[in-house]
Amino acid sequence: MGNLLGQIHTPQDVRKLNDAELNALCEEIRKAVIETVSGNGGHLASNLGVVELTVALMLAFDPPKDSIVWDVGHQSYPYKLLTGRFNRFSTMRQVGGLAGFPCREESPYDVFTSGHSSTSISAALGLSEANNLQGKEGYVIAVIGDGALSGGLAYEGLNNAGRLHRNLIVILNDNNMSISRNVGSMARYLTYIRTKPGYLKIKNNLESSLQKLPVVGKGISSALRRMKRAVKKVFYNSTIFEDFGFAYYGPFDGHDIRELKETFESAKLINKPVLLHVRTNKGKGYQYAEQDPSIYHGLSGFDVTTGDTGERSQSFSDVFGKEICDLAEENGNICAITAAMQGGTGLTAFREKYRNRFFDVGISEEHAVTFAGGLAVGGMLPVFAVYSTFLQRSYDELIHDVSLQNVKVILAVDRAGVVGEDGKTHQGVFDAAYLQTIPNTTVYSPAYFQELREQLAFLVREGKGLCAIRYPRGKELYKPSYFESSLLPFTVYGPQTGEIAVVTYGRIFSFAAETAELLGNLGYPVKLVKLNRIIPMDQGAVQAVLGCKWVFFFEEGVEQGGIGEHYASLLQNSGFSGRFFLRGIRDPFIKHAPMYHSLEELGLNADGMKDCILQSVCEKGFDYSEKTD
Amino acid sequence: MGNLLGQIHTPQDVRKLNDAELNALCEEIRKAVIETVSGNGGHLASNLGVVELTVALMLAFDPPKDSIVWDVGHQSYPYKLLTGRFNRFSTMRQVGGLAGFPCREESPYDVFTSGHSSTSISAALGLSEANNLQGKEGYVIAVIGDGALSGGLAYEGLNNAGRLHRNLIVILNDNNMSISRNVGSMARYLTYIRTKPGYLKIKNNLESSLQKLPVVGKGISSALRRMKRAVKKVFYNSTIFEDFGFAYYGPFDGHDIRELKETFESAKLINKPVLLHVRTNKGKGYQYAEQDPSIYHGLSGFDVTTGDTGERSQSFSDVFGKEICDLAEENGNICAITAAMQGGTGLTAFREKYRNRFFDVGISEEHAVTFAGGLAVGGMLPVFAVYSTFLQRSYDELIHDVSLQNVKVILAVDRAGVVGEDGKTHQGVFDAAYLQTIPNTTVYSPAYFQELREQLAFLVREGKGLCAIRYPRGKELYKPSYFESSLLPFTVYGPQTGEIAVVTYGRIFSFAAETAELLGNLGYPVKLVKLNRIIPMDQGAVQAVLGCKWVFFFEEGVEQGGIGEHYASLLQNSGFSGRFFLRGIRDPFIKHAPMYHSLEELGLNADGMKDCILQSVCEKGFDYSEKTD
Repeated sequence: MGNLLGQIHTPQDVRKLNDAELNALCEEIRKAVIETVSGNGGHLASNLGVVELTVALMLAFDPPKDSIVWDVGHQSYPYKLLTGRFNRFSTMRQVGGLAGFPCREESPYDVFTSGHSSTSISAALGLSEANNLQGKEGYVIAVIGDGALSGGLAYEGLNNAGRLHRNLIVILNDNNMSISRNVGSMARYLTYIRTKPGYLKIKNNLESSLQKLPVVGKGISSALRRMKRAVKKVFYNSTIFEDFGFAYYGPFDGHDIRELKETFESAKLINKPVLLHVRTNKGKGYQYAEQDPSIYHGLSGFDVTTGDTGERSQSFSDVFGKEICDLAEENGNICAITAAMQGGTGLTAFREKYRNRFFDVGISEEHAVTFAGGLAVGGMLPVFAVYSTFLQRSYDELIHDVSLQNVKVILAVDRAGVVGEDGKTHQGVFDAAYLQTIPNTTVYSPAYFQELREQLAFLVREGKGLCAIRYPRGKELYKPSYFESSLLPFTVYGPQTGEIAVVTYGRIFSFAAETAELLGNLGYPVKLVKLNRIIPMDQGAVQAVLGCKWVFFFEEGVEQGGIGEHYASLLQNSGFSGRFFLRGIRDPFIKHAPMYHSLEELGLNADGMKDCILQSVCEKGFDYSEKTD
Repeated sequence: MGNLLGQIHTPQDVRKLNDAELNALCEEIRKAVIETVSGNGGHLASNLGVVELTVALMLAFDPPKDSIVWDVGHQSYPYKLLTGRFNRFSTMRQVGGLAGFPCREESPYDVFTSGHSSTSISAALGLSEANNLQGKEGYVIAVIGDGALSGGLAYEGLNNAGRLHRNLIVILNDNNMSISRNVGSMARYLTYIRTKPGYLKIKNNLESSLQKLPVVGKGISSALRRMKRAVKKVFYNSTIFEDFGFAYYGPFDGHDIRELKETFESAKLINKPVLLHVRTNKGKGYQYAEQDPSIYHGLSGFDVTTGDTGERSQSFSDVFGKEICDLAEENGNICAITAAMQGGTGLTAFREKYRNRFFDVGISEEHAVTFAGGLAVGGMLPVFAVYSTFLQRSYDELIHDVSLQNVKVILAVDRAGVVGEDGKTHQGVFDAAYLQTIPNTTVYSPAYFQELREQLAFLVREGKGLCAIRYPRGKELYKPSYFESSLLPFTVYGPQTGEIAVVTYGRIFSFAAETAELLGNLGYPVKLVKLNRIIPMDQGAVQAVLGCKWVFFFEEGVEQGGIGEHYASLLQNSGFSGRFFLRGIRDPFIKHAPMYHSLEELGLNADGMKDCILQSVCEKGFDYSEKTD
């Protein structure tokens, strides 16, 4: 193990290996991926599927001179192993270690940072145009899965790439899956062309013809292409991709290194955008992952021998999934929508029970929201369950197709707050800030399961306009004995009068409660204001602290433009005469690390809050008399 | 004139007319549209293109039982004329009058409010599903232009609609234009299929076959369809739309009422999604508009006889367009990107001078930003000129594909602030709020041309990361003699000490200056703080008012989550002990009205500011002693 991988420092080193060694290298890559993911968690099945594809890319292309843009990027582990990061591979997703996605800061081989879906074609087209304008050499390759192809951004990229006639190579990594089984017409269409032998034959013809030519000039290859296309038009239907101005070849066996290498070499000769359709098996080489690639898509760790992914404690997603099923039983208007995240958002049971009211729209968050707007105008009650970080894509649709229509749509915003090991691209820290700019919006932010259940039921029953309930990834944290679930906009705990107030919302209320206990023991009683509803802000939640000398607002979300600043403004306007301290997230691109670690770094755990308060109240001792004129 | 239109109160009334009367009705509609737009401004060419299409829709369908969803909605004037709004038609785009876009509040016939592009298929699919789930009757029709089809949201809609097998009718209104000439592979593809006679013949076959059947049941029509499709697959290539699961028919003459009516009637019989490809001429029936539909797309008014659109005073867009050309001459890395708004954003000269550095990506704001990210990673300096309201669509791409890449991209945010007659859907009032949530962002907000020029040049020269310069629609307002253009983050005018401070940015600085003069004359000297750069906020701009008793912040943008709240928070944190008043926009869905009128209503003109200040300072006379404990 590690025999060959230890010798690979750059892609050039891969080119020194013979066929047998390349096969052995693939085995080593698989082993490294399985071992690391089993220990550190991460993405498994998608990486196992692209091992040969990645090796073949290294044989045919020359990164970083050639640019490889990985769409989503959760399939970039083999690439990391082959581009000088084998020695650090075991640090994957750990503090200070490798990121689980391509990351420009990490390596010059990672040309474009990714994490969100469907960006690769547009980004690659930009790179390609930049090369062209500057007379730089280098191929640009976008590797995109069939799942990511359901995103409108990928279509916009295709629509523009075909027109610009750049030497851009798009590799469609078709495994017939997004995270769950892929949906939509494009997916069905790919199934249809995947099974047609015609294209492969044509490609073979092209290749053998090309190989016979001593020098392949632009003129010759384009004449050849024209001829081939004419033949194809007669005997076979053209593909969508050809209609979009791409040369289309495939499908190819994505686990045959030699065929892939030759195909890539051929593609380099074609002076227009090329789409290569490659079939891979998600999870290839690890039987459990091959059998159920959804389960082995993203993991927290597992037992390599048995495939056991372990017992997972109940999560907010589970609670949401159960509650929305119960609500849907009483209310026949409830529809559930997911954008390719049925499992992650807890909607599997809903799908089974209420199949005709369940809509998996593929990786199409914009469509999900506008479709929800249409459902609502038509009299239904749509509930869109979505990760906070992906809902960002629908900002305009939330404004234009829901709020402006003045209809009721419920957002179940999962993974709100710091997400942990997925890192920078996936932090759910913008939602509260951008949602508060949208009129007719109500947002609850539960800290505990019971609240999630009750507030969701309340929104279903009584909510108006755009409603959202946002909750964190994973499980409940510390719950103080005095906690009481409430549908009121805010709850005050601790002394009703006092000098120090802490205001917060969501999961970190747990830390605020711990802080209050710590400070109470030190002789500083703290009034705790828990915002249950963060949008609209209740004036009472502001009034509650007017008599305090020090008000601390802690926010697990972007500080600038966030809820805390809105609160500050209301406080200011209410004639508050004490001091206000706001601690939110100033750099929302938080690196991969366990959630607790990130919150500690951000000063949003109990110790961080305590220190912030003590420093202000005791040491820097705000001199209250200064404030009197 | 008005003879027939005066008798049309509902779509049913259209059905009473004979062929000659229908033709006369079309003439009347054209006349009404031309007259009203010539006086009130609005959209001309798109409405003239759909007159017969709209009449035919009224003959074949029965709104509001059948739902017609107009994509973008700038082509809904004929529909408004035929659905009970003829009497109010002359009030179009005026205060209290008809909206220039479909508006749910205005009429039950306007089933979905629109203004932004590419939403219709998703919304219509939602309506169709809602009907289906509730057992409601009624066809759902989306009318979408070929320009809007370049948006990824439209593709996501198609991708989902084909799969769901609903009786949804999409009418592709193909005029080979978006606002400018249409671009992209889809546009080229449509040109290709537009000229193929094959489809039309098949459609005729289908129609005549269907007409021979006494009763058209589901079984029969689907057998027929299968047969037809088999024939078509052999003799003709399938279209993209068929690959997406739609039945495709066309192209049809979009100015032949009878053909359209029959086609629509046939489409009702097909129990799956249907796409009808209709060719129309933008500007049809008004020679000037037919000759140059771009110029006659959206107008402020014109002379009907001569087509003269009048002299327009210099606008911020003009100044931007000139300056970016000058900068591009010195800096060969500058690329300009537009999303189908070359004319509106002032980029026509750039396109002519630097064609290889100019990119019109079609109505694809998401792609525009990600593509810009790719260009920047590749070493170019992309400048994306875009209306504020449309940039909302790229919020996630700004975060993920620009800011996170840590590359430099410049946004030229046009139509920032209140836009006037286009109304609710087009207000540019969110940009400052959402841009401030994004890390590594610099935003300038000039009030005057000179600032726009200098700040843009500065950003090109020295900006880092995501840079934006935002400027309003139209012309400069009042410029006080003491104004000095500055690249500093803020400028202070008036008394250096004093009790009253006004802080503001952008265009309404003009009103703040007038206010300061008014109040100065009344004996209240005002310190004016003009924020030149709004993101990041300079601490000095906060320090500048710390000694004041009353600070007023006026913002032409959403109040909640906006710049003013951020300023309040900083002020609060700086130990400010006076009173702070923030007036931003609380309801950003501002109805169509002249810009001055809207700003007056919002209290953001000079009188509004003056009253706000006097009321606080004099009448409610903030008792400063109250603040001492």
